Amino acid sequence: MSDIEELRATVERLAGQVRALEDQVEIMQLVAQYGPSVDSGRGEATAALWTEDGSFDAVPVWEMRGRDDIISMVHGPGHQRLINNGCGHVLTVPHIVVDGDQATGRSYALNIRWDPEADRFWVARVSANTWTWVRTPAGWRIADRVNAPLDGTPEHREMLAPSDPDPERAGN
Amino acid sequence: MSDIEELRATVERLAGQVRALEDQVEIMQLVAQYGPSVDSGRGEATAALWTEDGSFDAVPVWEMRGRDDIISMVHGPGHQRLINNGCGHVLTVPHIVVDGDQATGRSYALNIRWDPEADRFWVARVSANTWTWVRTPAGWRIADRVNAPLDGTPEHREMLAPSDPDPERAGN
Amino acid sequence: MSDIEELRATVERLAGQVRALEDQVEIMQLVAQYGPSVDSGRGEATAALWTEDGSFDAVPVWEMRGRDDIISMVHGPGHQRLINNGCGHVLTVPHIVVDGDQATGRSYALNIRWDPEADRFWVARVSANTWTWVRTPAGWRIADRVNAPLDGTPEHREMLAPSDPDPERAGN
Repeated sequence: MSDIEELRATVERLAGQVRALEDQVEIMQLVAQYGPSVDSGRGEATAALWTEDGSFDAVPVWEMRGRDDIISMVHGPGHQRLINNGCGHVLTVPHIVVDGDQATGRSYALNIRWDPEADRFWVARVSANTWTWVRTPAGWRIADRVNAPLDGTPEHREMLAPSDPDPERAGN
Repeated sequence: MSDIEELRATVERLAGQVRALEDQVEIMQLVAQYGPSVDSGRGEATAALWTEDGSFDAVPVWEMRGRDDIISMVHGPGHQRLINNGCGHVLTVPHIVVDGDQATGRSYALNIRWDPEADRFWVARVSANTWTWVRTPAGWRIADRVNAPLDGTPEHREMLAPSDPDPERAGN
Repeated sequence: MSDIEELRATVERLAGQVRALEDQVEIMQLVAQYGPSVDSGRGEATAALWTEDGSFDAVPVWEMRGRDDIISMVHGPGHQRLINNGCGHVLTVPHIVVDGDQATGRSYALNIRWDPEADRFWVARVSANTWTWVRTPAGWRIADRVNAPLDGTPEHREMLAPSDPDPERAGN
C-alpha cells in the first residue's frame, strides 16, 4: 500500500469514529430538548423531536401516535394546568446503543411539581424510559418512547434491563 | 484535484466535526462542575467556571456580576448554612447550541436539601436555567447564567422555550 | 516536511482528539448504565460495569470488594425489596478527568422511592459520588466508586471538591 493509500485508510477509520461520536452526542442533545420544550408548553417543537408517525406512551394515561397526538397532549388542559402550576420534566442522559440508522436507549424521567402551600416541590413521578431513535435526513428523531412509573410494577422496572444478554460486554 | 488535495479536504472537514464535538463535550463538562464546586463550598473554583465579568442571576435572591460576587455568595452565611446542613445542587445536561465562539443553552437545576428530622431529603427548588457560554483562550466559560424556579411564573417557564422558531429544525 | 508528512501529522493530532472524545463519551455511557442495571435487578450486568476486583462503597451500609459483592448486594433482600416497592437510582453525568488509562470523576446519585400511600415519590438520598475508572481491553470499567449522602457530614461534601488546586484551570 502506498503512503497516501495508508493515510487514506487511517482517515476513513477516523471518520467512522467521528460519526459514532456524533450519533451519541446528537441523541443526547435530542433527549435534552424534551423537558425544555414540554415545560415551556411548545407543542410543535416537542412533536418535532419525533418522526412524523412517532409514538409516545406515557403509561398509564397517554398513547400518542404521530406528531398531532403529541401536540394535542402539550396544548391540552391537563398539561397546561401542570406547567401553569409549576412543573419540571427532568430527564437523564440515556444509555444509547446505536445500530446503523437506528438506536435504542434507556433512561429516567422525573416529574416534579410545585406546591405553593408547602413552599416546596414534590416528586410526582420517577419513570423508566425506553427509546427508539432513527436517523432521518434532518437528523436523529424519536421513533418510539415509553415512559412508565417505577412504582413497583414488574414490567416497568423490566424496561430498564440491559438488552445485551452478555454482561461481559456491558460498558460498550 | 490531486489525491493528496482531496485527502486534505476530507481531513479539514473531519477537523471541523471534531471541533464541534469538542465544543459540546467541553460545555457539558463545564456545567457538570458547577454542582460539585458549589456543594463543596469552593468559591474560587465555582467562580472560575465563569468569565472574569460573567453574570449569574439566581432569581429572586441573587444578582451576581463578576467572579467576586460569585465567591461572596459561595462563602457567604446563607450558602454555607445550606451545605453544612446537607444540600445537593443537581444539574442536568443542557441543550447546547454553538455559534462560533459563543453558545447558548437551556437546562434544569434541582436544589435538594437534607431534613434530619424527617430522615429524608426535600426538593426546595426545580429551576429553569438559561446559559451563555463563550470560548476563551483557557476554554469555554460561562458568560451568563439565569436560574429561576418553575413555580408557575410565566417568564420562568418561558426561559425554556426553544430559540429556533422553526420546529422542523429541532434536534439539530 | 513533505505535503504527505504534514498531512499525516495533522491526522495524528486529530486521532488524539478523537480518542479523548471517545474516552469522555464512553465513561458517560458507562455511568448511564448503573441505574438501569440496578433498578432492573440485574446483578451480573451491574457488576460487569466494574473491574473484576473493583470496589464500591455505599456509605454507611455497603463495602463491596469485587464483582461478587456487587452481585450479592443487587440480588440481596434489601435491594430487592427496594425495587419491588418502586425505586429509581438517578445518576448525573460526572465531571470526568482522564489521565492516560485512568480517569477520575465526581457526580451525584439520587435514590428516590415510591410511597403508595402518599401517591408520590420521596427522596431517600442525595449522594456525593467519586469515581475511578480504568481502561481495560474490554473498554472503560469502574475501579472504585464511593457514594455518600450529602447529609451535612463534612467528609461527604468534601468528596465533591475539585482535585485541581488551580481554579484558573477549571473547565479543562
